[in-house]
Amino acid sequence: MSLWLKNVIHGEDSVTIQIVDEYIVKIYRQNDTPIISTEDEVIEGNHSLRVLPSLFNGHTHASMTLFRSYGDDLPLMRWLQEKIWPLENGITEEFVEWGMRLAILEMIKTGTTGFNDMYWHYTACAKVVEEMGIHGVLSGVFVDLFDNNRAKEQQQLNEELYWMTKERFPKYVQFAIGPHAIYTVSENSLRWAAEFTETHQLPLHIHLAETEHEVIECKKQHQGKSPVEYLNSLHLVSPRLKAAHVIHVSDQDRAILSEKQATVIHNPTSNMKLAVGGPFNLPQMLSVGIQPILGTDGAGSNNSLDMFQEMKIAALLQKHAWGDPEVAPANTVWEMATKHAWKQFGYNAGEIAEGKLAEIILVNEKDVSMVPDHNYISNLVYSANGHIVDTTISSGRVLMKHRKVKGEEEIIQEFCKIAKKFVQRKHQNL
Amino acid sequence: MSLWLKNVIHGEDSVTIQIVDEYIVKIYRQNDTPIISTEDEVIEGNHSLRVLPSLFNGHTHASMTLFRSYGDDLPLMRWLQEKIWPLENGITEEFVEWGMRLAILEMIKTGTTGFNDMYWHYTACAKVVEEMGIHGVLSGVFVDLFDNNRAKEQQQLNEELYWMTKERFPKYVQFAIGPHAIYTVSENSLRWAAEFTETHQLPLHIHLAETEHEVIECKKQHQGKSPVEYLNSLHLVSPRLKAAHVIHVSDQDRAILSEKQATVIHNPTSNMKLAVGGPFNLPQMLSVGIQPILGTDGAGSNNSLDMFQEMKIAALLQKHAWGDPEVAPANTVWEMATKHAWKQFGYNAGEIAEGKLAEIILVNEKDVSMVPDHNYISNLVYSANGHIVDTTISSGRVLMKHRKVKGEEEIIQEFCKIAKKFVQRKHQNL
Repeated sequence: MSLWLKNVIHGEDSVTIQIVDEYIVKIYRQNDTPIISTEDEVIEGNHSLRVLPSLFNGHTHASMTLFRSYGDDLPLMRWLQEKIWPLENGITEEFVEWGMRLAILEMIKTGTTGFNDMYWHYTACAKVVEEMGIHGVLSGVFVDLFDNNRAKEQQQLNEELYWMTKERFPKYVQFAIGPHAIYTVSENSLRWAAEFTETHQLPLHIHLAETEHEVIECKKQHQGKSPVEYLNSLHLVSPRLKAAHVIHVSDQDRAILSEKQATVIHNPTSNMKLAVGGPFNLPQMLSVGIQPILGTDGAGSNNSLDMFQEMKIAALLQKHAWGDPEVAPANTVWEMATKHAWKQFGYNAGEIAEGKLAEIILVNEKDVSMVPDHNYISNLVYSANGHIVDTTISSGRVLMKHRKVKGEEEIIQEFCKIAKKFVQRKHQNL
Repeated sequence: MSLWLKNVIHGEDSVTIQIVDEYIVKIYRQNDTPIISTEDEVIEGNHSLRVLPSLFNGHTHASMTLFRSYGDDLPLMRWLQEKIWPLENGITEEFVEWGMRLAILEMIKTGTTGFNDMYWHYTACAKVVEEMGIHGVLSGVFVDLFDNNRAKEQQQLNEELYWMTKERFPKYVQFAIGPHAIYTVSENSLRWAAEFTETHQLPLHIHLAETEHEVIECKKQHQGKSPVEYLNSLHLVSPRLKAAHVIHVSDQDRAILSEKQATVIHNPTSNMKLAVGGPFNLPQMLSVGIQPILGTDGAGSNNSLDMFQEMKIAALLQKHAWGDPEVAPANTVWEMATKHAWKQFGYNAGEIAEGKLAEIILVNEKDVSMVPDHNYISNLVYSANGHIVDTTISSGRVLMKHRKVKGEEEIIQEFCKIAKKFVQRKHQNL
């Protein structure tokens, strides 16, 4: 049985795409005559839906949809101490599950079918990813607070999660080790993470050089080494490293990240909203051969998971920051959210071509934000938002068709109840 | 005959709103029993649509939807010389009409029912505003390039347009004088504009202190006066002044604008995209008693007219620029796009209250971007975009109901043809 995307716009042409299992097997031009069986599933594009690769969210904490708009316009430490930590204290699997379910629904509705995540209750997250069927690179929050016992516990737990993932969540979950940051994880555990991820060829997801404070403290504690130099000395910098933020870095740091082919993830909204400074230096990164990708960070600090919003904000921030309207052109930003991201997480996706994974969106070219069609990439980046996505496909499965996701009303209804309970629980504790 | 908004969420309550002609006449609480006639029009909110004031776009060039995504990622002068000016050369009423029609459609679909505009072919713009029925504060582009004859022509033309508007476009159009900028309009014409707008109590719409270059040149030519000081010396600074951008200004400039109660319009996306520097200093403006409002600028430089996008970008830019997550909180930005904007353009709107003009949106509180409901204002500013608007009402007329606007497919279809012709025309000229 095939899935057909009939009469969809691809570049300047109208094509028909055949998908079998998880893959794009054939792209038919307009004069070709594909043979479509009556049993096949067909989505008719009517020459007004454009086929594009779906987006990949490079860094998020998906379940934090529970915190959306719960504590805005606050300085980082007050936000954490007054809003986030009291609620995260004693957070249960049930809360995390529902946060993840809502997040994946939001991603599907805005055209994202892959994401790199770090959060508490790994198993709850993995369960929902497998249930909903988009690609999640998942890590728990590895924090040992420099405590030996906690370090051992965490290492053992992560080893178990790795083996468990292979067995229980083989299809959509990619297991990663997620040491939270250099200021919450001991040197011993960081070395362990480097070794474990090398042995098993796993991604290593970390927050890196997000604030100036982190850099100053690191240099004090580690013989003048910057966070990047410190990680490098512990053998954590490699193509497996997925480093989020990477704002307060030097030329030397960038040279290390480039040489070791690490992945750098830019999160412009979160960085601006929390005013962490910098900003992220995209032109310098590109000039030394680093190809950064894009992420939304969690809904606690964004507050959206819409990668279309994120692309626009990324382009605007770079132009503003370097006083140059030519930096971060639309196409560069588009590829940060698609092609380069899928590739750097090891997926054969991010482009519409035969042999690629069917990670696909159909975009409504007749939406008011997509006309005129002088330049569709510019429209995608500067004019559109996630609502122009008409249909979302992941691993060859249609997750949203003509803006309808199966069971979405029920998810939203249940999530709202859970989120209310989540907040009330805090007030009961006080 | 009344229009009823039944069981809609208002603050923490569920209410039913009665609209007669252009006004909100009565807000019924849940225990009240309004008497609804069978002839009345009823929109059922089912306790899941939230009633809010519609948005006001403080500065735009609406017809420039024709240019959307036509020339991005270019420096200002190359953008103008290579992309905008060759196409604007010989632009006809027909092109402007269709650009305006698409723009108003986009505004209705994203919850904006009032805007302050400046563009060529005033009459074409006014005609479409009157036809589509949202509030337009319209000015032609008053440019005399320091030529006496052109100055006289322009003054005469504007006087004619003023009288013509009263006659032909009495309902939705507010006529304004729109001297483009101090570097395109002579002192003589600026003085004339000050006098004419005072006599007839009209808004005076101008681009002001957008670039550093403008300030440097102004000081050279006008005995060291800044653009604001120069305008003030010509008696243009008053509550009638509607100044867009206002980026490169001093404490003294702000003191003048505050004292004279001028309106200042911030356009964050356009400013960042064209990298005009600054940025706009919201905290300083507020601290001296100026209450800025918000605009998208034209789709040529944004490329969207969605005021929800603009609110988020405004908040993010301010936090980033001043290194302080507490500046530009959600509520401040929301009021820049609603209450303060309507008020400063003289409309009795921008709030949901009895006696106010029915400039109203109903927002879908069950959209994934609006849940959970910890803080709906934060959701509106940081999470949502224009697509959460379910229903748009202007002057008591339902312009969009459950996301459908009458005739939208036809407008988009025709606009696409026109926009193609618009661009081809240039290539034929070359």
